[in-house]
Amino acid sequence: MCHPTPTPPMPAHRPLPDTIPGHGPVLPWDAGCHGPVTVPRAARPLHVHRPSVGKRLASLEAAFDACAVRDGATLSFHHHLRNGDQVLNQVLDVAARRGLRGLTVAASSLFPVHSPLVGHVEAGVVARIVTAYMAGPVADAVSAGRLGVPVLMQTHGGRAAAIETGRLPIDVAFIAAPAADEAGNLSGASGRAACGPLGYAMVDAAHAERVVAVTDTLQPYPVGAIDIPQTQVDFVVVGDSIGDPAGILSGTTRPTRDPLGLQIADTAARVIEAAGLLGPAFSFQTGAGGISLAVAQAVAARMRGQGVRGSFAAGGVTGTLCEMLEAGLFRQILDVQCFDLHAVESYRRDPRHQAMSAAMYASPLTRGAVVDRLQAMILGAAEVDLGFNVNVTTGTDGRILGGSGGHADTAAGAALAIVTTKLAASAAPKIVPRVRCVTTPGSTIDVVVTELGVAVNPARPELAAQLRAAGLPVHGIEALCAAAAERAPALPAARDVAPDDGPDDSPVVAVVEYRDGRVIDVVRRVGGSPA
Amino acid sequence: MCHPTPTPPMPAHRPLPDTIPGHGPVLPWDAGCHGPVTVPRAARPLHVHRPSVGKRLASLEAAFDACAVRDGATLSFHHHLRNGDQVLNQVLDVAARRGLRGLTVAASSLFPVHSPLVGHVEAGVVARIVTAYMAGPVADAVSAGRLGVPVLMQTHGGRAAAIETGRLPIDVAFIAAPAADEAGNLSGASGRAACGPLGYAMVDAAHAERVVAVTDTLQPYPVGAIDIPQTQVDFVVVGDSIGDPAGILSGTTRPTRDPLGLQIADTAARVIEAAGLLGPAFSFQTGAGGISLAVAQAVAARMRGQGVRGSFAAGGVTGTLCEMLEAGLFRQILDVQCFDLHAVESYRRDPRHQAMSAAMYASPLTRGAVVDRLQAMILGAAEVDLGFNVNVTTGTDGRILGGSGGHADTAAGAALAIVTTKLAASAAPKIVPRVRCVTTPGSTIDVVVTELGVAVNPARPELAAQLRAAGLPVHGIEALCAAAAERAPALPAARDVAPDDGPDDSPVVAVVEYRDGRVIDVVRRVGGSPA
Repeated sequence: MCHPTPTPPMPAHRPLPDTIPGHGPVLPWDAGCHGPVTVPRAARPLHVHRPSVGKRLASLEAAFDACAVRDGATLSFHHHLRNGDQVLNQVLDVAARRGLRGLTVAASSLFPVHSPLVGHVEAGVVARIVTAYMAGPVADAVSAGRLGVPVLMQTHGGRAAAIETGRLPIDVAFIAAPAADEAGNLSGASGRAACGPLGYAMVDAAHAERVVAVTDTLQPYPVGAIDIPQTQVDFVVVGDSIGDPAGILSGTTRPTRDPLGLQIADTAARVIEAAGLLGPAFSFQTGAGGISLAVAQAVAARMRGQGVRGSFAAGGVTGTLCEMLEAGLFRQILDVQCFDLHAVESYRRDPRHQAMSAAMYASPLTRGAVVDRLQAMILGAAEVDLGFNVNVTTGTDGRILGGSGGHADTAAGAALAIVTTKLAASAAPKIVPRVRCVTTPGSTIDVVVTELGVAVNPARPELAAQLRAAGLPVHGIEALCAAAAERAPALPAARDVAPDDGPDDSPVVAVVEYRDGRVIDVVRRVGGSPA
Repeated sequence: MCHPTPTPPMPAHRPLPDTIPGHGPVLPWDAGCHGPVTVPRAARPLHVHRPSVGKRLASLEAAFDACAVRDGATLSFHHHLRNGDQVLNQVLDVAARRGLRGLTVAASSLFPVHSPLVGHVEAGVVARIVTAYMAGPVADAVSAGRLGVPVLMQTHGGRAAAIETGRLPIDVAFIAAPAADEAGNLSGASGRAACGPLGYAMVDAAHAERVVAVTDTLQPYPVGAIDIPQTQVDFVVVGDSIGDPAGILSGTTRPTRDPLGLQIADTAARVIEAAGLLGPAFSFQTGAGGISLAVAQAVAARMRGQGVRGSFAAGGVTGTLCEMLEAGLFRQILDVQCFDLHAVESYRRDPRHQAMSAAMYASPLTRGAVVDRLQAMILGAAEVDLGFNVNVTTGTDGRILGGSGGHADTAAGAALAIVTTKLAASAAPKIVPRVRCVTTPGSTIDVVVTELGVAVNPARPELAAQLRAAGLPVHGIEALCAAAAERAPALPAARDVAPDDGPDDSPVVAVVEYRDGRVIDVVRRVGGSPA
């Protein structure tokens, strides 16, 4: 949850530049919990569809014509097909063939499969990337400074807010639709590449000036389980394949079997119980990692043992959460994106498994997001520091390996934001004096759970007392940091020990926006000069 | 469907005034099918909800304070609770107690239960009414000229378009929510006054500056079957009752048993079959009247007999349409509003029964409405004239007794717009030389079905040939008009026989907008001087 005053001990944050070439002036995040009270809404014009004119187009080329895509346009994409997505690459190939230049790619996330984007950037077809997560060759190219202008890295909720308020205007949204009808009703519940609710794409479809659906499964009108209605879709392109179903699954869909991981998961479940959350209002979100899934199983076991029926699970939904729904441990699931096929099947058949848009999930600039209703959120970390700041943006070598996604959103919203992490991994400590990049501010993290025990944010002394009373091993974050250093003696983070080390003068390759749109950190170029 | 050129014989339309006191300049409808190609979208500012502040308010009074409702504000209401609605009266009583003046009431429909509105108009609390349908004391008061300024009568789709484009800006939308949670997720699927999908209210909630949910059934978070998400709702007021479930049902929920009515229904079903529509793409909508329900049953019998499985039913959904879904005669239902409890139960439990917003149902200013996908639409009529124009706004005495609702929208959209009517009723002819008020232009009506036979719009000679080939009794509309006059010799419409009768100089009490926002007719004061 968000604690309005910075948490001591808060290592001094590296100063942000006042302005960043290719980005402009920087409005730094100030540790406040909230942005403005009243915000504008986006108002792209709407192109009326004449019933006598069909929406079906023969090709993406035809869609570029119909949408009059010009140099400098902003094209948006969603990541429900994850590393199986083929639509982004198909669209940008068309853009390149048409000789377009200077496009902005606003993709909710980028995966290794999107490696051709690197070439489009180097060729000048794409000038700017806005995303909430990137991993693989694109992230590597950005880290090496090959993009020219900094990538704008948002959170899932921040992206929705930027689109809804008009700060990120989209010219054309390309929606990879597992199922569609010829009028443009779109569903993720069926089709070859069924992926579950199209929560991220819902925001794009509602606000882009033009919306192009790309599908490989055209169904008779009207498609079932409509995620995006025909009123929002301009054109429908039917292709051979929108994605490889095998790549849609998240990397990890099984609970960890690693003893350290299981120990951490059990501790996290004990933390939730000790915090007094296991009651009828209990709500829960976890990602798809092995430890996260193990936490869900450990929580489920405790709920069963105590006869607790909670409120809802949210997310990024895995089959593990669906099993909890089916077992009666939750009344509802609110789902922005499915992580596995069990979840997709649950969405298709169980009316208690409801879709939500990215805005409803996580936007800070709306009338209340689901993240604000979360009781317990299980978060991962590349690094956590003495100020409880979490880095999920860069790795130990400074290269980009992810990004917030919903990390900062759920941490800010959840009553109990729990980071689970081993003390060290790959010979590097994960609890460090200062994170290389602040993705999620420590003022929104409540507990860090490691195999050695837990550290509680000093802003929550009552929570620390609860955990101690329950017999949990509560340590200071400094003790966990020291233990991490012992386990990984070749401390790669050594340069970060001194909080007053001077500003890095490598070029900024990514600007990290907090969910309210202010800048919380930057990522600088690593390695040699740009290729 | 819409025939772009006026249909001969088209009686000359009474000229519309250039300007109307209390309304302003008149942009007359010109018989064109389509409005503008690109339209703006509304952009009321959005008030961000802080998680630490609850949305629950103790009373409607508190909601007026929280929304800072001022003189001249526009308050909107929806009519899913129909003649059982108590929310509009409750809200306006509060407005009156607070001494507010000059409000605009934008209600999707008004029923007899809303009679207190008359007093609020006379007291100056309400200065202007915008609606798509009115019946009962409010309509009587308007007809008698007691409102001061003309009522603006829209269609359901035209209302949605006006709200979405910002032409009808709403300050506060009051949503009668059969079920709600404290975060403002709203559902019509459950609760004391369960009424089915909140399709009309969806548009208001998405565009009003402030949205107040009023419920008598607060459920634990999150409510199931969310129709309107928490991101759109500012405040939640829990009261004793939002409506009388007994009044929610439409007046007529049983098929007619009247022999003439059954004969008309059978003929209408034969028309649909003869037009070649009974195939896998067949889609169908009908209202809740006795003849309409009988048509649905007659169509169902023909579909069963021929083993036809159609596409979808839409509407205003009755249990009869749900039975057709359950029998496999349709694949899907698209539902803006339920007319009976069978439909409500179907919506709650059958994922093939999907909600749609009023914009998706019928707006002409969007990327395609469901009405444009309808194959057969069964329409009622107070009067039909020689130009196939239909009046569902005024009665034989010139008083307002209804309004378009979705009449003009579905007529324009459906491939086969069928008006079913007896030749005469209550000693008055229903096929007349010229309708008193054009609600739905004849250029969008394809067939009129009476007990004597059918008349086909001359713009569709191929349809007339199909019907004749199927042995249906096809007559000229003039013959039906003459037969109607014979059945009702005391022809109250005599004054309208001459198309060039002079302009009526009674004050205009209602301006009838076509779905594209242009003015298609006016209603003038009847009876003596205003009370």
